[in-house]
Amino acid sequence: MQNELFNHIHIVLVGTTHPGNIGAAARAMKTMGLHRLELVATHVFPSAEATARASGADDILASAGRHESLDTALAEFTLVLATSGRARNIDWPVYSPEQAMALAIEQAGLGNRIAVVFGRESSGLSNAELELCHGVIRIPANPDFPSLNLAAAVQILSYEFCKQVRQQQESTGPVPDSRVTPADVAHMDRFYRELQACMEEVGYYDPEKPRLLMRRLKRLFNRARLDRNEYNILMGVLTAARKMARRDS
Amino acid sequence: MQNELFNHIHIVLVGTTHPGNIGAAARAMKTMGLHRLELVATHVFPSAEATARASGADDILASAGRHESLDTALAEFTLVLATSGRARNIDWPVYSPEQAMALAIEQAGLGNRIAVVFGRESSGLSNAELELCHGVIRIPANPDFPSLNLAAAVQILSYEFCKQVRQQQESTGPVPDSRVTPADVAHMDRFYRELQACMEEVGYYDPEKPRLLMRRLKRLFNRARLDRNEYNILMGVLTAARKMARRDS
Repeated sequence: MQNELFNHIHIVLVGTTHPGNIGAAARAMKTMGLHRLELVATHVFPSAEATARASGADDILASAGRHESLDTALAEFTLVLATSGRARNIDWPVYSPEQAMALAIEQAGLGNRIAVVFGRESSGLSNAELELCHGVIRIPANPDFPSLNLAAAVQILSYEFCKQVRQQQESTGPVPDSRVTPADVAHMDRFYRELQACMEEVGYYDPEKPRLLMRRLKRLFNRARLDRNEYNILMGVLTAARKMARRDS
Repeated sequence: MQNELFNHIHIVLVGTTHPGNIGAAARAMKTMGLHRLELVATHVFPSAEATARASGADDILASAGRHESLDTALAEFTLVLATSGRARNIDWPVYSPEQAMALAIEQAGLGNRIAVVFGRESSGLSNAELELCHGVIRIPANPDFPSLNLAAAVQILSYEFCKQVRQQQESTGPVPDSRVTPADVAHMDRFYRELQACMEEVGYYDPEKPRLLMRRLKRLFNRARLDRNEYNILMGVLTAARKMARRDS
């Protein structure tokens, strides 16, 4: 997991009012493997409330960068994306979280520094701050209730970044689950014959009037893709049932 | 936004300890347009803390279903997906949030009811609770710090649902197969009881030495997601086998 890409993406919180939100944002980042946090014009920090809400992500709080203003914080960044709930007069390029994190990963892969900027809880970013950014990330939300908590927004962006890095890693070489051996076609053929024989012996299946019964059952068990262990269990049940049925006849 | 699909997905919180988390989860849901919340064996509810953390999503708290146990809560659901951070002995089918919500949307489009289940903050879901589920959703996370807050996990799943519904609206999606009615949790419960009774009567299953037998069988049949027709066939087979076994004794 600790891929080099994670070193290139910074979460930037501007003017956060509630220290609890800073802690919760740090926790959200860390769960997704992000660790670079920049705090701009923070009201109360450090704070016991931030540390409490970070619940174990206090290393991120301790190593966070502190800045007076957004322009100084962003000086060395080459891609700056701002999250925004509000529609603006002037249209910035708008990205979905997915598109934005794809772009971030591409740029991180080139060794560039990326900032994802989150504004104040109440008022977001000023126009001057927004003008420092290359684009706006719009998180899809309920138009009647778009009030995403700050840490929830950080969680969604961090999740998209983590998810896409993972997908990228997996696409270079997936490792299939090798713990279970699937039943092969020959097993399934034995199983279906045993199942049909059992159904006949208990009086459920009449080979003279088969309807679509066996086809339906094959569709069901093929869909489930039995492993060898499951095959053995089901064969054991059928064998026991047949033994019982034959003793009876 | 208020698409019919949002009426079919229920967020189910099991044994939540901190009322603040219930409120934050309701807020996370509402920001993404979800509104159906089910509370199972909740410790403290209603609570002022839950209402405060909901910050405006208290309509969701007020209309939440209350349940004594997960099995009664799930009786009428046809697709049940549990979120889990832990690796388990027996593997349930594992979905990413993206895959899980794609499946949920497909099923919601057919008019089926989907539950996304979140376990206790400290200990998750019990094995018996997990056995009620058709699959597990694993949220990608930092292996060194996977401790996602409950509301953060709800946020991510709700976001994936909302995002994919939006994407579907933007394109004209394929129409899934609507001819089959899936078996619900209450059906599956009857089926498993019948299956166990049948295995006992034919001498394959010893309730004194159960091993992992029933769990393995539940995993298999939950994975297959039976439709009502298949359920009827299997119940018919079991009934015939039991009748035969009893005649013998």
